[in-house]
Amino acid sequence: MTTKLFRGAHIYTPMKEDRPASGAAQGNLLEWKDGGFLVENGRISLIGERRDVERQAGKNGNKTVDAEVDLGGAVVVPGFVDPHTHACVAALREGEFSMRLAGKPYLEILKAGGGILSSVRSVRAASEDELFRFSAKLLETTLRYGTTTVEIKSGYGLDRENELKMLSVIARLGREGAGRGVVQTVVPTFMGAHAVPEEYRTKPDSYVVMLRDEMLPAVAKQGIAKFCDVFCEDGVFSVAQSRRILQKAAELGMRLKIHADEVHDLGGAALAGELRTASAEHLLAASDEGIDAMAKGGVVAVLLPATAYSLKKPFARARSMIERNVPVALATDLNPGSCFCQSMPFVASLAMMGMNMTPGETLTGITLNAAWAVGLEEEVGSLEPGKLADFVVLDGETPAILAYASGICPIRSVWKRGERV
Amino acid sequence: MTTKLFRGAHIYTPMKEDRPASGAAQGNLLEWKDGGFLVENGRISLIGERRDVERQAGKNGNKTVDAEVDLGGAVVVPGFVDPHTHACVAALREGEFSMRLAGKPYLEILKAGGGILSSVRSVRAASEDELFRFSAKLLETTLRYGTTTVEIKSGYGLDRENELKMLSVIARLGREGAGRGVVQTVVPTFMGAHAVPEEYRTKPDSYVVMLRDEMLPAVAKQGIAKFCDVFCEDGVFSVAQSRRILQKAAELGMRLKIHADEVHDLGGAALAGELRTASAEHLLAASDEGIDAMAKGGVVAVLLPATAYSLKKPFARARSMIERNVPVALATDLNPGSCFCQSMPFVASLAMMGMNMTPGETLTGITLNAAWAVGLEEEVGSLEPGKLADFVVLDGETPAILAYASGICPIRSVWKRGERV
Repeated sequence: MTTKLFRGAHIYTPMKEDRPASGAAQGNLLEWKDGGFLVENGRISLIGERRDVERQAGKNGNKTVDAEVDLGGAVVVPGFVDPHTHACVAALREGEFSMRLAGKPYLEILKAGGGILSSVRSVRAASEDELFRFSAKLLETTLRYGTTTVEIKSGYGLDRENELKMLSVIARLGREGAGRGVVQTVVPTFMGAHAVPEEYRTKPDSYVVMLRDEMLPAVAKQGIAKFCDVFCEDGVFSVAQSRRILQKAAELGMRLKIHADEVHDLGGAALAGELRTASAEHLLAASDEGIDAMAKGGVVAVLLPATAYSLKKPFARARSMIERNVPVALATDLNPGSCFCQSMPFVASLAMMGMNMTPGETLTGITLNAAWAVGLEEEVGSLEPGKLADFVVLDGETPAILAYASGICPIRSVWKRGERV
Repeated sequence: MTTKLFRGAHIYTPMKEDRPASGAAQGNLLEWKDGGFLVENGRISLIGERRDVERQAGKNGNKTVDAEVDLGGAVVVPGFVDPHTHACVAALREGEFSMRLAGKPYLEILKAGGGILSSVRSVRAASEDELFRFSAKLLETTLRYGTTTVEIKSGYGLDRENELKMLSVIARLGREGAGRGVVQTVVPTFMGAHAVPEEYRTKPDSYVVMLRDEMLPAVAKQGIAKFCDVFCEDGVFSVAQSRRILQKAAELGMRLKIHADEVHDLGGAALAGELRTASAEHLLAASDEGIDAMAKGGVVAVLLPATAYSLKKPFARARSMIERNVPVALATDLNPGSCFCQSMPFVASLAMMGMNMTPGETLTGITLNAAWAVGLEEEVGSLEPGKLADFVVLDGETPAILAYASGICPIRSVWKRGERV
């Protein structure tokens, strides 16, 4: 039993009772200017005004405080939750990125066998150890930039063996972390339906059948994926195929996510609402009807502004979603192709400057709503009793520093389960 | 006499003979895949293919190599030159930034006595030591992000005493640097014409007269400003006032810069061409005629995409300028108000993603053309014999890493005069 008392914390946090925070509640933050919190075995047991916390901690005779940390009045916010990454990879694709800077559109690169399929080749060729080491290095960077919880998708294996290999590596990343003694909370998502693999190019429906009848049951049997995700898009998986896959995953006990309406408004957002998925992601082309269906289904919108930036596209309509009562979360989309972004502060900056979200809405988007999007709203995403003591000490006066100091890492320190990274 | 041999360098550099690089030449880079260079007393004496450099270094009997550094095949580019900052300040303005996120336009904040004038109050109230310490901290961050040469403007004093105080601090920053043993090359610019101070609000013309007849001669007498800059804009200084100030500065032996056509197309770019200033800066609203006048006058366009980003404005028309043969340089505009950007990699990312500049054009923009913009084209900005051994080791395969890894610091190490920072 280790007990740590943190003082001198100017705390900003969203509140769990906004479940999930949508509409006006998206910007709601609790603020304690002279705040403090008590951490017992990595979890917050008390939080509030410093004096109240000190008094309550002192009153309770059996709570010996083992250590005290004075944060010197710095701004403390919840550790960032990145609810959408493809961070389990074996190689980057900087060369392809240069091609894109020369004007080649993404779907064309995809059709030419580049894009996702080039990552599939390198992942298939990699051993579990190689895959682990490469991915751990990316996670280490994200951790330095404040990400204490990260969702990671499979989807570069695209056959049973390699998808299970990826999920096994993702599980190991969640056990061993980036090898700095501090382990991020990792949320594993099965995404066999990330692309149609080369060997099924002429018979995509057979791939869907194989995925549904062989891969999904094998993944479910091992219990190593919390979510199932599908890339619902022209030239990838149709709405009908996506529905088939997701319904099967739900039957097998997985929770659902969907890459929806990224390039074309296929009706992916509407499908998310219909199936009451935990989240729908991208949504650059989502219609008002799709957005309303999401609001009705209680679906969290996971927006990826760094991907829009990296693809030189207009941002998703965050303000419309907030106005239509869809809770908005923000993620990096960290992947070697469309968006090699390892920084949640950069995502937050784009949300404020590019999508006109307020600092409060943005902070909720990278913490509590992101936790809802990955089903960890009871564990992380806000600084409240019972939750993990995951927090970031910012190098500024308010959460707006994430946009004010755009392009750098405006973070003094990152803490996971009460331990400094 | 210290001599260092650097090996294992994948070198990309623009070439000094493109003076300054404009039009098609803006993207021209020399590349040595297996490159090396010899550094003698902080300057490059040999550079090229590793084998050639090793052979030539060995031939020359009196050139004993004191140390060898193997860069392991990493990408090496010239140290970044930031040709436009207001980094000499005594306080930040994060609160005002939050106001802007709530929708208040910059010129309105300016009129309300906020904006530049709030920095004027804090600079006037600060001692030289306070001003030095605060500014040095900002410079330390810029150095970590690869800036080895930085221009710094006065312009928060706005009276003789305080402008001279600022220029004295800027000179000290150039002597002592950020206090890490490594000193950036600092270019001092006098910018008394940054705003009309409160005490002259009702008689701006008297301020121009005082600036011209008292401040400028005092600055020139001390010889502590290489450039004179003017904020030519509606509600600040007119074209006629700007011309009067700049002509006097030229008579006194200073070189010229101008903040031109940032908000309105007043004809600042045309004035730059007319006066053959070293550079014109901002240029968001510059007309084709203004751009052509700059091309004719040999004026470098210093573009500040992080400012446009931070003000939620469209970017300057970099492609038009390059097509019309205006050399484009890039800068942070680091200041506490409109753009608190300390990262040249972020500026480079915005240039590639937001202004459609190629990686080669962008690298030239943050190195050689920026050196031209501050009159240091013989000292820095490219990796060539005779120039300072200022370089950045990137954490990627090509200069495109500056956009591929947007939002982080994709730098392995920064070197100034052959010494690692």
